[in-house]
Amino acid sequence: MGQLLGKSAVITSAGHYMGPAIADLFEEQGAGVTRDAGELYPDTAITELFAAGVPDILVVNLAEPPRPATVNAITDADWDRLFDKLVHPLMRLVRAASGPMKARGSGKIIAITSAAPLRGIPRASAYCAARGAQNSFLRAAGLELAKANIQVNAIAQNYVRNDTYYPDSILDRDNFKLHVQQMVPTKRVTESRETAQLALYLAGPDSTHMVGQILPFAGGWTTSTG
Amino acid sequence: MGQLLGKSAVITSAGHYMGPAIADLFEEQGAGVTRDAGELYPDTAITELFAAGVPDILVVNLAEPPRPATVNAITDADWDRLFDKLVHPLMRLVRAASGPMKARGSGKIIAITSAAPLRGIPRASAYCAARGAQNSFLRAAGLELAKANIQVNAIAQNYVRNDTYYPDSILDRDNFKLHVQQMVPTKRVTESRETAQLALYLAGPDSTHMVGQILPFAGGWTTSTG
Amino acid sequence: MGQLLGKSAVITSAGHYMGPAIADLFEEQGAGVTRDAGELYPDTAITELFAAGVPDILVVNLAEPPRPATVNAITDADWDRLFDKLVHPLMRLVRAASGPMKARGSGKIIAITSAAPLRGIPRASAYCAARGAQNSFLRAAGLELAKANIQVNAIAQNYVRNDTYYPDSILDRDNFKLHVQQMVPTKRVTESRETAQLALYLAGPDSTHMVGQILPFAGGWTTSTG
Amino acid sequence: MGQLLGKSAVITSAGHYMGPAIADLFEEQGAGVTRDAGELYPDTAITELFAAGVPDILVVNLAEPPRPATVNAITDADWDRLFDKLVHPLMRLVRAASGPMKARGSGKIIAITSAAPLRGIPRASAYCAARGAQNSFLRAAGLELAKANIQVNAIAQNYVRNDTYYPDSILDRDNFKLHVQQMVPTKRVTESRETAQLALYLAGPDSTHMVGQILPFAGGWTTSTG
Repeated sequence: MGQLLGKSAVITSAGHYMGPAIADLFEEQGAGVTRDAGELYPDTAITELFAAGVPDILVVNLAEPPRPATVNAITDADWDRLFDKLVHPLMRLVRAASGPMKARGSGKIIAITSAAPLRGIPRASAYCAARGAQNSFLRAAGLELAKANIQVNAIAQNYVRNDTYYPDSILDRDNFKLHVQQMVPTKRVTESRETAQLALYLAGPDSTHMVGQILPFAGGWTTSTG
Repeated sequence: MGQLLGKSAVITSAGHYMGPAIADLFEEQGAGVTRDAGELYPDTAITELFAAGVPDILVVNLAEPPRPATVNAITDADWDRLFDKLVHPLMRLVRAASGPMKARGSGKIIAITSAAPLRGIPRASAYCAARGAQNSFLRAAGLELAKANIQVNAIAQNYVRNDTYYPDSILDRDNFKLHVQQMVPTKRVTESRETAQLALYLAGPDSTHMVGQILPFAGGWTTSTG
Repeated sequence: MGQLLGKSAVITSAGHYMGPAIADLFEEQGAGVTRDAGELYPDTAITELFAAGVPDILVVNLAEPPRPATVNAITDADWDRLFDKLVHPLMRLVRAASGPMKARGSGKIIAITSAAPLRGIPRASAYCAARGAQNSFLRAAGLELAKANIQVNAIAQNYVRNDTYYPDSILDRDNFKLHVQQMVPTKRVTESRETAQLALYLAGPDSTHMVGQILPFAGGWTTSTG
Repeated sequence: MGQLLGKSAVITSAGHYMGPAIADLFEEQGAGVTRDAGELYPDTAITELFAAGVPDILVVNLAEPPRPATVNAITDADWDRLFDKLVHPLMRLVRAASGPMKARGSGKIIAITSAAPLRGIPRASAYCAARGAQNSFLRAAGLELAKANIQVNAIAQNYVRNDTYYPDSILDRDNFKLHVQQMVPTKRVTESRETAQLALYLAGPDSTHMVGQILPFAGGWTTSTG
């Protein structure tokens, strides 16, 4: 209890994806949490979000359904939507936060991304491209900001229950249950509380040595390298 | 000699980056090569490019200077430019080629990308994001198209002489020479002919087992895997 | 406080490497900790170690100096020593613990290994081979044991203060300080307390979704993945 | 034809695994090939093998059945056998070859290893450990030897027809055919001729920029990272 006492945290799109679980746990641990309801995060919204100051901890939690299609059938609308919802807001949020964090000499940025691009998913190449852009941006930004005592990392997850990708209506399907048995070494989908615990570890005061890391978090579905 | 006899190949942006070396070698090996001078590849240009039929081998060779900046100083113009030059044309080209290749039951797609996102480069997070989007798209597309006997792979290179990133004016600088000594295990920048040889291997008839692979090709600068 | 209340933990070679920091933190968090002083862990020693029962949490903490040599000058004695100290005891410990953990339906195995094989270090190929064997064994074992609710993971660290690799006598050298400035994105060596925090996260009750993972933990020195 | 004209090559355990295919192709391309029939490669055998001089190209081709077992049931005999057949001879061969190659200022070392440790295979953790030791040794040795103009790389393969792992008696089984359909993106096992082509690329005079690389070569089964 109280691992984040006195810390401020902003969580984006806080009503969706990993937002509720992370916000709840961070509050339990004493942080002052801003649950922001934004989605596209244009610069004007970001300026307003950070009007009272950039927080100690920024959780970039962005989600958009994968919009499955074979490569030859990707639509421009789906492609653009994935980049508009996942990639560009991430850059704008990190861009806006990193200057003040550098000036202050500390900061934590935790992005909830996806394990999909680490493994590659047929019929989801647009989604993999967008999530891969996120992961690659975060790795480079994390290496750059490390020397300013800012720790940037990504939780590259899959098979975690959430409203966007794994709502109960999918989890209850027989063919999905079979898929999990065949493809996920742990043989199950986990709860968002587990992602929140990993985010708490990354947000904690004794976590300064892991930077620019894309952490696979997927029940063993993606284990290769680290 | 003649490893590509009777094969048709299209090379994009063929006057730049790895275009000249690949086009020369593929012609030497008997391919009928179209050296296309395009850059942004809107759908109209692609339709025209493939008017006479999608080639046996498509080499997606796209380059754009990295536009270095710290994360807090990335401009929207630079960010958009990198995605417009590197990411979106790649998707449109692969989208247009994959349908006819599937119908034909064979095809080779070779993209010349970058090792930058595999390692992460400070002050180049925008470039890493765009190249990472390319690599992630190609991995997923490659896995999807593999079963149709289409082999999609990327040469993720660095430290290869070329007009966009490593022109002689950079190679001749003393501080760049020092950088190579410190950072590149082979202690040198190689010639574009070597990339062309790797592309030839991937384009050859006895290369069907490597798919969706992002091949680090960087003098040992990026080796990490499993 | 009390995150490991009621849990039993065994820490191998507990006087060295990450042993003291992990044992201290796990005790602070309520675990009953056995600090074992073994090194080579033949089967007889392991039988004795687990005589009272296999613990809830097994921390396999093994260390041996890297014994630097160019490839052509590796001695059989050094090579064998590295495998005898790092690789074979790991297998024997996990082999002995996994049966009872499977029978019980739960268990945590956390190995403190090294980031060296993820990146590759010249003049340390023997050490990289041994640490790489550890990491590869743990990945496969972790995937296998995941379905039995046993979580096996490795902390693949570097640049953490400890008696075997980074004692103060090395940290105080000017050329080592320069090396850290050039090679480690965080520009510093961290304290063993940070490794212990990561081990605590992995040992906790809300950590079931990360399995078979080799976690790079090295100040950004090794970041590469997907 | 004639890409290896005037080159000498030694292929270990040349009657098994990838030996026949590589020896045949290298001879077709003009190399003088020594097909060695050794298995354990103690130093005395290696001294004899290199008595007439270390070759231009050394192909370390070692294989041993995976000896499947759950972690708790690994036998010491199986564990030791895998290291004795795969790991230690590799070190001894590279150790013996690297000195003369350094003195000469050039050399190619190509090891045929396995993709198994890149992905992790349940019930094959001993095999994964041994193959992982190989891959990690080769990465580090490759980075070290790169500056001496010696290129060391591994072909980390799976799903290639061969006498040790994929003889016809396995390929013809219905449950194996189903496994390939489910697990291998290309939906097939390839011929050893394809591995030989990749080895030829690595052995060629225009391949100096890829070093210390562990090349996944497995029909897309392992694609993650590079």
